[in-house]
Amino acid sequence: MKVILYMEMTVNGMVAKSNDETPWSDELWKAYQEMVKNVKNMIVGRKTYQLMVEADEFATIDNPFTVVLTSQNFVPQTKNTVTAHFPQEALKLVEEKGFTETIIGGGGKLNSSFMREGLVDEIYLDIEPMVFGQGIALFEANEFEYGLKLLGIKKLSDSSIQLHYAIEK
Amino acid sequence: MKVILYMEMTVNGMVAKSNDETPWSDELWKAYQEMVKNVKNMIVGRKTYQLMVEADEFATIDNPFTVVLTSQNFVPQTKNTVTAHFPQEALKLVEEKGFTETIIGGGGKLNSSFMREGLVDEIYLDIEPMVFGQGIALFEANEFEYGLKLLGIKKLSDSSIQLHYAIEK
Repeated sequence: MKVILYMEMTVNGMVAKSNDETPWSDELWKAYQEMVKNVKNMIVGRKTYQLMVEADEFATIDNPFTVVLTSQNFVPQTKNTVTAHFPQEALKLVEEKGFTETIIGGGGKLNSSFMREGLVDEIYLDIEPMVFGQGIALFEANEFEYGLKLLGIKKLSDSSIQLHYAIEK
Repeated sequence: MKVILYMEMTVNGMVAKSNDETPWSDELWKAYQEMVKNVKNMIVGRKTYQLMVEADEFATIDNPFTVVLTSQNFVPQTKNTVTAHFPQEALKLVEEKGFTETIIGGGGKLNSSFMREGLVDEIYLDIEPMVFGQGIALFEANEFEYGLKLLGIKKLSDSSIQLHYAIEK
């Protein structure tokens, strides 16, 4: 199972404003939607899931098989969606559906929990030409450290880029 | 006066580990040293200054004119070095020496204070192929937000890159 962390963020590593706003450009949204439509499944945290529901995002990304990671008892409102309590359990659910790769799609707490357990293989970061002085960081503070290997740089627009890394384990 | 923020950081925007370690590659140090030698002056925070003194860094970068921003009474140990209490005061000291550009060189608190006051014109970020789950962020949390314009991407080694942005004000 190839586990891909895919996030849109500012130049200083913020994946949202403090109020959860994600004012990314159309080019970034398009890159993200294409990736999800291609992989056809994703794992997200409960808050990210609810923001996606509020933004009516699931139809746009062709209703991928979605695992919502949550510590609570939580009933998803969208079709093709299940819940899990732990990262390994979420991966198992994706695997049982026959997928060979999956997307870890935020937020910072979820990303951090997969990183801490050494479960992520590759990282795609779409970098919006913005800085936020504060906000939600790519990783909620946690004890891990990895070296990466740059696999590619792609321009998404005049000022936005996509960085693609493999994690060295 | 062109004010350039120049930092080395991880892919997730950490400029040091929590214990102040900066395990960057030779390529990144070289890029940074060349920039400082070229501009011949820099503005740094007190903690960054002291870490630079401990690492015996000033001789390597040809003893640039250095302004240490500090809220305390602090006597610098290196030649060609003065102190200031506020960002505008630091810029005035650099200007009085006849410089037309300066480097803002960390840490996160200093960077953030110049950004909040709208004093930074360009940002260079040398991105090491690493992620730290926690550490010292590029900007200490503060209320500001800017759009940027990508001026250039340069590869510093197989896996490290330099991003160059202008700040839109």
